[in-house]
Amino acid sequence: MPEITEDKLDLIIGVDIGGTNTAIGFVDNDNNILFESSFSTEPEKGAADFFNRLAIIINKELKKFENKYTLSGIGLAAPGVNYRSGTIESSVNLKWGYVNIIDLTKSHFDVPVVLLNDADAAALGEYYKGVAQGMKNFIVLTLGTGLGSGIFVEGHLLRGENGLAGELGHIIIEPEGRQCSCGRKGCLETYVSAGGIKRSVFHFLSVSNIESKLRNISYNELTSKKVYELALEHDKVALEVFYYTGKILGEALANIVTVFNPEAIILFGGLADADDLILTPTNFYFEKNLMSTNKGKVKILKSVLQNGRAAVLGACGFVIETIENNIINV
Amino acid sequence: MPEITEDKLDLIIGVDIGGTNTAIGFVDNDNNILFESSFSTEPEKGAADFFNRLAIIINKELKKFENKYTLSGIGLAAPGVNYRSGTIESSVNLKWGYVNIIDLTKSHFDVPVVLLNDADAAALGEYYKGVAQGMKNFIVLTLGTGLGSGIFVEGHLLRGENGLAGELGHIIIEPEGRQCSCGRKGCLETYVSAGGIKRSVFHFLSVSNIESKLRNISYNELTSKKVYELALEHDKVALEVFYYTGKILGEALANIVTVFNPEAIILFGGLADADDLILTPTNFYFEKNLMSTNKGKVKILKSVLQNGRAAVLGACGFVIETIENNIINV
Repeated sequence: MPEITEDKLDLIIGVDIGGTNTAIGFVDNDNNILFESSFSTEPEKGAADFFNRLAIIINKELKKFENKYTLSGIGLAAPGVNYRSGTIESSVNLKWGYVNIIDLTKSHFDVPVVLLNDADAAALGEYYKGVAQGMKNFIVLTLGTGLGSGIFVEGHLLRGENGLAGELGHIIIEPEGRQCSCGRKGCLETYVSAGGIKRSVFHFLSVSNIESKLRNISYNELTSKKVYELALEHDKVALEVFYYTGKILGEALANIVTVFNPEAIILFGGLADADDLILTPTNFYFEKNLMSTNKGKVKILKSVLQNGRAAVLGACGFVIETIENNIINV
Repeated sequence: MPEITEDKLDLIIGVDIGGTNTAIGFVDNDNNILFESSFSTEPEKGAADFFNRLAIIINKELKKFENKYTLSGIGLAAPGVNYRSGTIESSVNLKWGYVNIIDLTKSHFDVPVVLLNDADAAALGEYYKGVAQGMKNFIVLTLGTGLGSGIFVEGHLLRGENGLAGELGHIIIEPEGRQCSCGRKGCLETYVSAGGIKRSVFHFLSVSNIESKLRNISYNELTSKKVYELALEHDKVALEVFYYTGKILGEALANIVTVFNPEAIILFGGLADADDLILTPTNFYFEKNLMSTNKGKVKILKSVLQNGRAAVLGACGFVIETIENNIINV
C-alpha cells in the first residue's frame, strides 16, 4: 500500500554528540520535539561502536513513530567538526581521529545526513527556537567542559575559508599562559570553562593563604560543580574563582563585540548556570571594556532552552533547511 | 542637444579623507583610473570648509572630462564611519563630531553619494583591483597613524548590527596597557601603528641602557619614519622596536585567524612598507601562534596598490556596485 507511505509526515533526528553524554531528539517538519533521550557517549569504545549503539536506540524508538512518520534526515552535532569535509578534525574530547561520521551514520540509515559543529548547532537552535529568534548578528558561547562558540553574521553561520572559523575558545588571551589541549598556551577556554574553574582554584590556593574547604580536595577529585556549591556557602576561594572567571569572560566578550558588533551574546552550559556568581563580574567587565560606541547596546543573554536541546534543535533545523533549500548534496 | 548627454560615459569619484591628506580619484564604469590627486585635509578648519575645498578641486578637474563623461556618483571613505547612519561617529583624527558628510557632499553635487569606513574601502579596493581579487574571506589591515581593518566574510564586508564591526585596532591586547585615543587602555593600535612605534621607542629607552641615536630625539620630534631610517642603520633600539611591534602584530593576527579563518590577511600603510623589519617577526609569531589546523594555510600579503589608491578604488567600486544593484537609497 504505497499510498499510505506518501501520506506520512517527515521525522527528523538531531544528535548532539558530547564527550560525556549524547542527546537525541526526534522532531517534526516544524522542529517541534516528538521525542527526546540521552545516553552515555563512551567515546573510548570507538566511533563504530558508538554509531552501532546510536542506531539501535534510534531504530527502537522509530518503531513507535513508523505508522505516522517517515525518517527524512539526520543532523549530527559534534565538537571539532569541519563541515566542509564531513569529518571531526580536532576533538580532544572524543579522540576518534579523522572519522567520517556522515558515512558511518549513512551505513545505518539511508537518509540525508548533515554534520555541524556542536556550538554552531547550539547557535542555530537559539536562532530557530530560542532567544535569538529574529536576530541576524549574534554569538553563542557554550560554557561546558570547554568553551565553544557559534557566530551568526547577517543571518548566516560564520564558517571561514576552510570551515574553521569561530573558535573563540582558542583565542590566546595570555601568551605563555595555561597549557591548552590544542597544544598551545593561554587559550580563553583554559580560563573560562569547567576545567578553567578547577585550574583557577589551584591558582588561588597557590598564591593566597585564604582558608578554604577547597584545600581538602585533590585536583582529580575536584569538580566545577563542587566549586559552585562551595561558592554558595561563601567559601572565599570559590567566590574569588568565579569573580576572576567572570572578569576574564567579560573582557573577552568586550573584544568580541569590538570585532563583530553583534546584537546579543548568548551564554549557555554549566558555567552560565552559575548565574550571578559569574554573570555579575562578566557584565561589569564587559560594559567597562566596551568601546563607547557599543556601550549599553549589546545584550548578554542566557539561553532559555534546556540543556542539550539547543544543539539538537539546531541540528534538526539545519536538516530541514538543507532539504528545503536543497543547499548541499546530502 | 540632449542626445549628446545621453552618449556620455559614467564618471565616478572616490575620495579617501585621511587625517593628514585626502586622496581623490576619478574612474570610469570599469573602475579604471582617469585622474588622481591629493590635497591637505586640514581637518581643523572644519567639515564645511573641507567640503567647499573638495568641491572646488573636483569641479575644476571635472571640466576637463565634461565633454566625454558625466558624473554619476561619489564614494567617500573616512575613518570612524558608520555606514548605516551616514555619519562619522568616532574619528579622533578628524574631530568633526557627528557630521553627516553625505548631506554635505550632496549640497555640492546632485548625484548619489555613498560613505564607507576607510579600511572597508581599502578592503574593497583590494577585492576589486588588488591582491584579494577572487577571494571571499580575507582581512585588510591598514597600518598608518592608527590601525584600521576591513573584513570580508563570504564575499561581503562585515558590518555588524549597528555598522560598527571590524574595529580590530581597538581589540584590547593589554588590560591596563597604553592609553588609547578611544578612551580605553591597551588597544592593539597603541602598539601596532606609527604612533605605537614611537611609544615603543620610549618604552625601550626607559627599560634598557642600550645606546641609541633615539636618545637624542624628543617625543614630539620623533616620527616612525625616523625610527625606520635608524633601524636600517642598525640602531639597536630601533631594531628592537620593530621586532617587538612585529611580534605583537603576529600574535594578534593568529588570534584573528582563529576567529575568522580567512584565506589571507593583507597589510598596507606605512608600517607594512617597513618590510622585513616588521614582517619577519610578524610571520614568525603568526605561524607560531596559529592553531595546528590553520598552520601553513593562511597567507600574509602586502598590498600591491599604490598608497591611498586602494581606498579610492574601493569607494568608487562601491558606488558602481551600489548603482548597478540599486542596493541602497542613495
